[in-house]
Amino acid sequence: MGLRVEYGISVSLVGTVLKYMTIPLLAPLVTALIYGERVLPFAITIVIAIVAGTLLERLHPEPKLGHREGFLFVALTWLAVPILGMIPYLVAGQGTIGHPVDALFESMSGFTTTGATVLADISFETHSRSVLLWRQFTQWLGGLGIIVLMVAILPQLSVGGAQVMEEEAPGFSIEKLTPGIQETARALWKIYIGFTVLAIALYYGWNLAGFAPEMTFYNAVAHAITTMPTGGFSPEARSIEAFSPVIQWTIMPFMLIAGTNFALFWYAFHGKPGRLVENTEFRSYVSTVTVAGGVLFLLLVTGAGVTEVAVPVGSLTGEFESAARHALFQSLSFITTTGYASLDFNAWSPATQTVLLFMMFFGGSVGSAAGSIKIIRWYVIQRFVRRELYTTVHPDAVVPIRTSTEVLDEETIRGLLAFTFLFLVLFAVSTVLLYFDSLRAGPSLSTLEAMSTTMATLGNIGPGFGTVGPMNNYLPFSNTAKLYMVFLMWIGRLEILSVLIILTPTYWWQ
Amino acid sequence: MGLRVEYGISVSLVGTVLKYMTIPLLAPLVTALIYGERVLPFAITIVIAIVAGTLLERLHPEPKLGHREGFLFVALTWLAVPILGMIPYLVAGQGTIGHPVDALFESMSGFTTTGATVLADISFETHSRSVLLWRQFTQWLGGLGIIVLMVAILPQLSVGGAQVMEEEAPGFSIEKLTPGIQETARALWKIYIGFTVLAIALYYGWNLAGFAPEMTFYNAVAHAITTMPTGGFSPEARSIEAFSPVIQWTIMPFMLIAGTNFALFWYAFHGKPGRLVENTEFRSYVSTVTVAGGVLFLLLVTGAGVTEVAVPVGSLTGEFESAARHALFQSLSFITTTGYASLDFNAWSPATQTVLLFMMFFGGSVGSAAGSIKIIRWYVIQRFVRRELYTTVHPDAVVPIRTSTEVLDEETIRGLLAFTFLFLVLFAVSTVLLYFDSLRAGPSLSTLEAMSTTMATLGNIGPGFGTVGPMNNYLPFSNTAKLYMVFLMWIGRLEILSVLIILTPTYWWQ
Ligand SMILES: [K+]
Ligand SMILES: [K+]
Repeated sequence: MGLRVEYGISVSLVGTVLKYMTIPLLAPLVTALIYGERVLPFAITIVIAIVAGTLLERLHPEPKLGHREGFLFVALTWLAVPILGMIPYLVAGQGTIGHPVDALFESMSGFTTTGATVLADISFETHSRSVLLWRQFTQWLGGLGIIVLMVAILPQLSVGGAQVMEEEAPGFSIEKLTPGIQETARALWKIYIGFTVLAIALYYGWNLAGFAPEMTFYNAVAHAITTMPTGGFSPEARSIEAFSPVIQWTIMPFMLIAGTNFALFWYAFHGKPGRLVENTEFRSYVSTVTVAGGVLFLLLVTGAGVTEVAVPVGSLTGEFESAARHALFQSLSFITTTGYASLDFNAWSPATQTVLLFMMFFGGSVGSAAGSIKIIRWYVIQRFVRRELYTTVHPDAVVPIRTSTEVLDEETIRGLLAFTFLFLVLFAVSTVLLYFDSLRAGPSLSTLEAMSTTMATLGNIGPGFGTVGPMNNYLPFSNTAKLYMVFLMWIGRLEILSVLIILTPTYWWQ
Repeated sequence: MGLRVEYGISVSLVGTVLKYMTIPLLAPLVTALIYGERVLPFAITIVIAIVAGTLLERLHPEPKLGHREGFLFVALTWLAVPILGMIPYLVAGQGTIGHPVDALFESMSGFTTTGATVLADISFETHSRSVLLWRQFTQWLGGLGIIVLMVAILPQLSVGGAQVMEEEAPGFSIEKLTPGIQETARALWKIYIGFTVLAIALYYGWNLAGFAPEMTFYNAVAHAITTMPTGGFSPEARSIEAFSPVIQWTIMPFMLIAGTNFALFWYAFHGKPGRLVENTEFRSYVSTVTVAGGVLFLLLVTGAGVTEVAVPVGSLTGEFESAARHALFQSLSFITTTGYASLDFNAWSPATQTVLLFMMFFGGSVGSAAGSIKIIRWYVIQRFVRRELYTTVHPDAVVPIRTSTEVLDEETIRGLLAFTFLFLVLFAVSTVLLYFDSLRAGPSLSTLEAMSTTMATLGNIGPGFGTVGPMNNYLPFSNTAKLYMVFLMWIGRLEILSVLIILTPTYWWQ
């Protein structure tokens, strides 16, 4: 039995990533200088990043990532970076995230673009602007990493049908498009950064135009960098409810963009906009948002979906603009797994919240930072079931499943199906486990709350319902439960299979 | 475009089935004579069965069932028989099921072995003994039909991976074992009838021995004929809570048997008991029941799973025998989709009820009358996901999936997966639809209640939680909702795909 994995390579490359983390850590450091706040939380973290990174890098002199080492690298990176990212919270010691478990929770929630929070008091009284900006920034960094992971790394590892990315965006893979993974990454990052800058400009533009006094430059940046990674953190305790309708309408197209396959924008900007419009997943995605938004609109505008206790939100019955705005906003927020709230949907009826719960299973597109199951998988499942109906009547027929351009490989289909089952089973098991822990240590949960807690973390969405509603937080859970949710955010973010593979003996030994 | 289906054949054979229904209709007729009740409800139904049956038979002189006609025959049979079966309720006009929609609901619930009820008052004051016996008897007849459907018909139609039956029980198929479908049916019916008689003897035996005064001969028969088909109807308003612990313990092995593949008993009675013990699905089934029962036992005996309002049930904390009995009883009842209640589990905490909700997705074995997804599918899904983990690391490996004896065909695996997805999607969509109807017409439902309503009907289980709890009924729903649930019981019973196939154009035209 020989070890088959050169884990030194993976760990060494994690060290390199940690060293690179010093660059983004300069942003909150500069922010602290601007606002005259303490720079120590970030200075210490930078020193730790350099020291730890250098030490880890020594484990292998010439790290070249192989197939097996790739899995380990990905899993370790999304552990090491959140652990590094929690240090500013610990050193700053502001509010609830001065506690190690909560700091880790908040950092993992950031880098996985989940947006679940354990901040009891999101305000500038308790937290410095630099620390809150770092919290926002972890999502943007996580998004950067996830997009590269989805477009360039996982398809190479053939994990959970991630190869569908290559078949959905042919030519857009490491070998064909660019000489290396770094080139692919740069091509995508340009798009990601471009949209972020555009979002900042538009968000702040409404402020300059006098339509959004709450949208300061700080807030414009803070929200743009959590919109694009479908993150959902907000430095405002009441999320997007704090802003005027014009801002809520402006955020919507950016959520739509954030949930779209970024490779399609690359085509669009290189003379092939047709690729976007003709794309199977993009079409399904837009249809899903439209139908979900329509259903929600009807529930709200007729008053059927709001309980009588919804007084603080105000009734939306007959209010066409508000009903349409909140319906579309929440559909986009849940389907793209962003998790922003344009109002406290805890006040909506359980029926409406159950519709939102089911929306949590959709997910955005592959090749974006969106989490959960993702539209393409549901599309393939739908074609798969249809084919089964057809072949039951025509037993000898061979029916391929197509996406936009190519016939899907049966191996890819199996990967997509296996992922979906694994996701659903993990959802059920985790709901039971978190429920049991809540019997022991609180809080008291309804079935809807328990299910939404699991989905909000496993699907990298952020808020759920009731106790974990958009204006509440995850603080009431026990440390055990919080650590389990850290695990869920992590494994959900890495598409489950890529983590589970590391746990199989056949991965390590031969 | 020519019609490809000789629907006359299917309809003609449905006519034959209706004519055969006159034989079981003699049972309640004789019961009515014994108790001096009205015979008219059954006499009229017998006349209608003969007339309608004869007319339908005329549609085709020599009906020989082909592949395509098989689907139509199965779907129509499970519509025509419940419609015939509701006539006694209408003519008797006793209680709530004098109303056509409720009569159809109760009859469909019976013949699909679901056990969901719209009887507001289950008692001999409102209902005659003959009508209540007919209600019980519809489940036993439904079970007879389902077992033959599962073992002999669906595998031939290759629907939803039903072929797994042949691979699980090799040799036990129409051609090989016996000269025809009637022989297979007779072989299974003997076993089914044998166990029913044994159940009657043991249930009534405890009465004769003085341990179960409530278990009269009428009750012994009435419960044996709803145990074996995993039906769950009871002429007692409080279900199995009405009986002594010794009866509750006695019912458990019969529920276990009822959820087992009947072909395995055939082997056992023909010198091959090893086939039962070595069977993959049987082992998974017994493990599932054991683990689920164990979890439930811990929740009950520690008091963690019972809310403070559980006063009417009495606390099970520290009560080892009662906690073990109710835990095992409810696990068996939910996993086998029987739906009996040994106490009102509505009093248990939402966490415990959520565990029961997830148990509803298991289902018993193929080749039994159990509904829902069924253990073998979960077993295959588990192997499928494991294989995916393995082949991601070893991309060139070809790994077959095995059950007890044979390598599963990939086509069978695809069928099993497609069914499971279809089931889960239908569950989600139906929950939303029933929820919307309840917003319009009541009753007010929690998420748990809404989900359990769908699963209780689609999975042919019977009771759910809250409004549809084991001591309550489905009367509060609107007629629209009830008719939709009739559809769910029907499509769930026929393994969904066999119904959907009839709705595809490619089935009808060429
Ligand atoms: K999120
Ligand atoms: K049942």
